[in-house]
Amino acid sequence: MPMTRISLLEGKSSEYHRTLMEQIYLAMRETIEIPEGDRFATITEHKSEQMNNSGNYDGIERSDDPVFIQITINAGRSVEKKQALYAAIAKRLEADPGIRPEDVVVSLLEVAAEDWSLGNGVAQYV
Amino acid sequence: MPMTRISLLEGKSSEYHRTLMEQIYLAMRETIEIPEGDRFATITEHKSEQMNNSGNYDGIERSDDPVFIQITINAGRSVEKKQALYAAIAKRLEADPGIRPEDVVVSLLEVAAEDWSLGNGVAQYV
Amino acid sequence: MPMTRISLLEGKSSEYHRTLMEQIYLAMRETIEIPEGDRFATITEHKSEQMNNSGNYDGIERSDDPVFIQITINAGRSVEKKQALYAAIAKRLEADPGIRPEDVVVSLLEVAAEDWSLGNGVAQYV
Repeated sequence: MPMTRISLLEGKSSEYHRTLMEQIYLAMRETIEIPEGDRFATITEHKSEQMNNSGNYDGIERSDDPVFIQITINAGRSVEKKQALYAAIAKRLEADPGIRPEDVVVSLLEVAAEDWSLGNGVAQYV
Repeated sequence: MPMTRISLLEGKSSEYHRTLMEQIYLAMRETIEIPEGDRFATITEHKSEQMNNSGNYDGIERSDDPVFIQITINAGRSVEKKQALYAAIAKRLEADPGIRPEDVVVSLLEVAAEDWSLGNGVAQYV
Repeated sequence: MPMTRISLLEGKSSEYHRTLMEQIYLAMRETIEIPEGDRFATITEHKSEQMNNSGNYDGIERSDDPVFIQITINAGRSVEKKQALYAAIAKRLEADPGIRPEDVVVSLLEVAAEDWSLGNGVAQYV
């Protein structure tokens, strides 16, 4: 049920893309208890003039090669679980495929259980 | 006022893209009473390594050629109307352009009436 | 903290893209008090058959060359501030890079302070 949407600069390898999606999936498995196999995700590539990172805003030294991650999830996770998720994503992406933690931006969108259909035209969580 | 964002694999025809947007529009007209002519939509294409479907998660046999549909709408539709919308989208897309219902994933994002400007710098629904 | 996602037709210049992101940033600075340097944004290009504007829906004469702007922000801005934001975006984009106000569509997604990590795996606003 999470839907993960990733934005990054064009030119990374297929392996880089697959690893990125897998690591975020594993971070969610570890911290916010998503079901096994729940891997809905997309990656969109952008040219350099189509992505703005925020320099050193808020005291973080960002580069011009960011990763923006938008995750739509069911509402109800605690603040602590969300904090654990952010930490796990940053740690995993630093290890592989090797992304600076400063350049990992995560945004959560919370929705209700009735706001999904995961196939077959049915609202599975109602 | 709905804003429909569709993600799919690259390589489909222009006609396929246009049909997809039209069918989702018609499904919304039939089930959640959107105004005539309210057709805001985008399609983004992804390479195969940039899209993850969820295999047979939750008992549905998904392929590697999914369609992810994110629809931003004003809050307030009933659970029943949302269920009717999911069913209508899946049925219409199966008929034309011919998409397996198992591969149609829909996610709704609900917003307030004040959260839109549909042109001219004005919040039309306030 | 706002994350701005812009959709437009392919073929515009790099300068056009950069100006578009800068003008929206400046409009947010003027009207909804975002911090200096808070510039997270992406642009996604679409082919003509991958974007649907809404013709003259709701009495506005739209063209086939729209700009759709989705801004994710912390919840809590007043209706008046949102109205000022829409007006500022439309006015600035008309001045430079020269976009018809009728073709500027803005959608806000409100989230909680805990729903962001702006780098380093930390929820900066908690």
